[in-house]
Amino acid sequence: MTRLAPGSTLGILGGGQLGRMLSQAANRLGFDVVILDPEENSPAGRVSRGQIVAPYDDPNALDVMGKVCDAVTFEFENVPAASVDRIRAGGARVAPGPMALAVAQDRLEEKTFLNGVGATTVAFHAVATLEDLHRGLEKLGTPSLLKTRREGYDGKGQVWIKAAKGATAAWDALGGRPCILEARAPFLRELSIIAARGRDGAVAVYPLGENRHAGGVLRTTLAPAVVDARIDKAARRIAKAVLNGLEYVGVVGIELFDLGEGRLLVNEIAPRVHNTGHWTQDGCACDQFEQHVRAVMGWPLGPTAAHASVEMTNLLGDEVDRWAALSGKSDVRIHLYGKAPARPGRKMGHVNRVRPLQH
Amino acid sequence: MTRLAPGSTLGILGGGQLGRMLSQAANRLGFDVVILDPEENSPAGRVSRGQIVAPYDDPNALDVMGKVCDAVTFEFENVPAASVDRIRAGGARVAPGPMALAVAQDRLEEKTFLNGVGATTVAFHAVATLEDLHRGLEKLGTPSLLKTRREGYDGKGQVWIKAAKGATAAWDALGGRPCILEARAPFLRELSIIAARGRDGAVAVYPLGENRHAGGVLRTTLAPAVVDARIDKAARRIAKAVLNGLEYVGVVGIELFDLGEGRLLVNEIAPRVHNTGHWTQDGCACDQFEQHVRAVMGWPLGPTAAHASVEMTNLLGDEVDRWAALSGKSDVRIHLYGKAPARPGRKMGHVNRVRPLQH
Repeated sequence: MTRLAPGSTLGILGGGQLGRMLSQAANRLGFDVVILDPEENSPAGRVSRGQIVAPYDDPNALDVMGKVCDAVTFEFENVPAASVDRIRAGGARVAPGPMALAVAQDRLEEKTFLNGVGATTVAFHAVATLEDLHRGLEKLGTPSLLKTRREGYDGKGQVWIKAAKGATAAWDALGGRPCILEARAPFLRELSIIAARGRDGAVAVYPLGENRHAGGVLRTTLAPAVVDARIDKAARRIAKAVLNGLEYVGVVGIELFDLGEGRLLVNEIAPRVHNTGHWTQDGCACDQFEQHVRAVMGWPLGPTAAHASVEMTNLLGDEVDRWAALSGKSDVRIHLYGKAPARPGRKMGHVNRVRPLQH
Repeated sequence: MTRLAPGSTLGILGGGQLGRMLSQAANRLGFDVVILDPEENSPAGRVSRGQIVAPYDDPNALDVMGKVCDAVTFEFENVPAASVDRIRAGGARVAPGPMALAVAQDRLEEKTFLNGVGATTVAFHAVATLEDLHRGLEKLGTPSLLKTRREGYDGKGQVWIKAAKGATAAWDALGGRPCILEARAPFLRELSIIAARGRDGAVAVYPLGENRHAGGVLRTTLAPAVVDARIDKAARRIAKAVLNGLEYVGVVGIELFDLGEGRLLVNEIAPRVHNTGHWTQDGCACDQFEQHVRAVMGWPLGPTAAHASVEMTNLLGDEVDRWAALSGKSDVRIHLYGKAPARPGRKMGHVNRVRPLQH
């Protein structure tokens, strides 16, 4: 439980925008940051004390991270478990813990865990063979969604099956890998909740965000979302169950389906700071990045109340070229990631449009 | 007037806490930052893309800064004019301009300039010799304050003369250097105003702060200060006169004496972000650091309204050891500078205590 003192070093696996914003938050609290990322001059490396340029399973790099850093965290969920073990052996505390990674890396484990802690999901069926898939389609009906159990994000590694006769094509499209078949949720809207658990077991939950996606990629988050008390209570209960169930330390992002009439399903969890939590940078005194750093370094959690209403919009690909027009809007806060080139669909930055909170 | 695009490089002369917080703001807007500072691993260098370790008058270092950077600014006012010229010759724009530096580096020039633009100061007398000092004491009476014309900050390089017989001792204490003698201002309190001017000539002014010093060093700033409309108007007029008079680009800090009944005197100006503006980090959507970066990079200025009431307190020397207790206070935002060791009086960090704005 020891609180790591300012001057301690935080290691981050992954040098993208999430690592960058984590690093900036850690620096504000007086910590030094070291990034591990295979690409030189990563967005996070450019704002940190140092970067180790190596693959995420490079034993020497992991040994250095374990020795140089007092604590280590990550900006993506597909960190190899062996890497985490090796870092921990070097002496650094790693957060979130191995349980969170194991659950988040496998969609079947994830849904099983979620339902086990009372966080309901859509109905699902494990698919190891084409036969399993046929049985799943009989059980869940169509349309239903076939996803690889591992990897895939932003809509990749998944395919909708509209009728039973499409089973073979879908199975082949995903390479015959172990999959999970998910029933379609008749949801009204997508919400998400950002929450944190400290080393002392305390839980802090931010107001809900309402999300709009396009092409499987997040476009906007509106927060605090307009929700009735039942939804708010249900979401908080889910966040608490997930965090405690995983003995979690740090920030988690939980995507939810709002079915109406106060009913929520959990879509998925991300064991890290989350794109749908970027609104907290300009809507809360302690944003999700500082909150995560606080938890990982053993500090008490910060406040989660919103002081403003925020509409967060991702800048994808050449949308970042709108910076000049955006820079003149007084209600818009700009957050850019220092990335180049602006490949189509690449997350280059985001803007938070800030409005007074409606009481 | 060109707006420098994200991906451009900002150079900062000086790697202390002001350079550090400027760098963090620049990074948020997608700029890379290079620091010039004679000390390795400076607070700012540790959160920036790179640091050149060299004296501020090293010709090679200045040439590199001029070539690598698209724009260059500084975190302290005693930058040699020749250094600025050399950087500019390399191709980088430098802001604020030479007029601001010339005025800020010499207290006699500063007071002369201020009164010239209608920003009243205490009465003063130029002191080049001990005879000048005696004449000044006759004119201004005692007690009065003898200051070196150049250098000195946080109460250094100045001595109070309580009676005419103390003239020689004061003159010797300051080493017989060119000085300025200042009359005592019968002020009720110290205020300061943080303001900015863009490359397009636009001026933006933050709400006033009320400052408390101890031993010549700033302890706390309370902002927005409680002031009547006359004071507010007078301060805004002063800020505008100073910024336009200097054809300034960037953020300026202006220290004021409140004489009561709506009357203000200017104590001094700092051509840079200012300790009394740190409250803006947690009280405004666009803080003084982003504001300065916006101006220097040719971007439109950001909004200056306060969304919270903030009490900023400096953490001096071993006061930084209070971090553990402070980390548990939910209304306190911590800003640490990554400095060691915590020498007595050294500015190690600050905290902003945030309260709802009183309307």
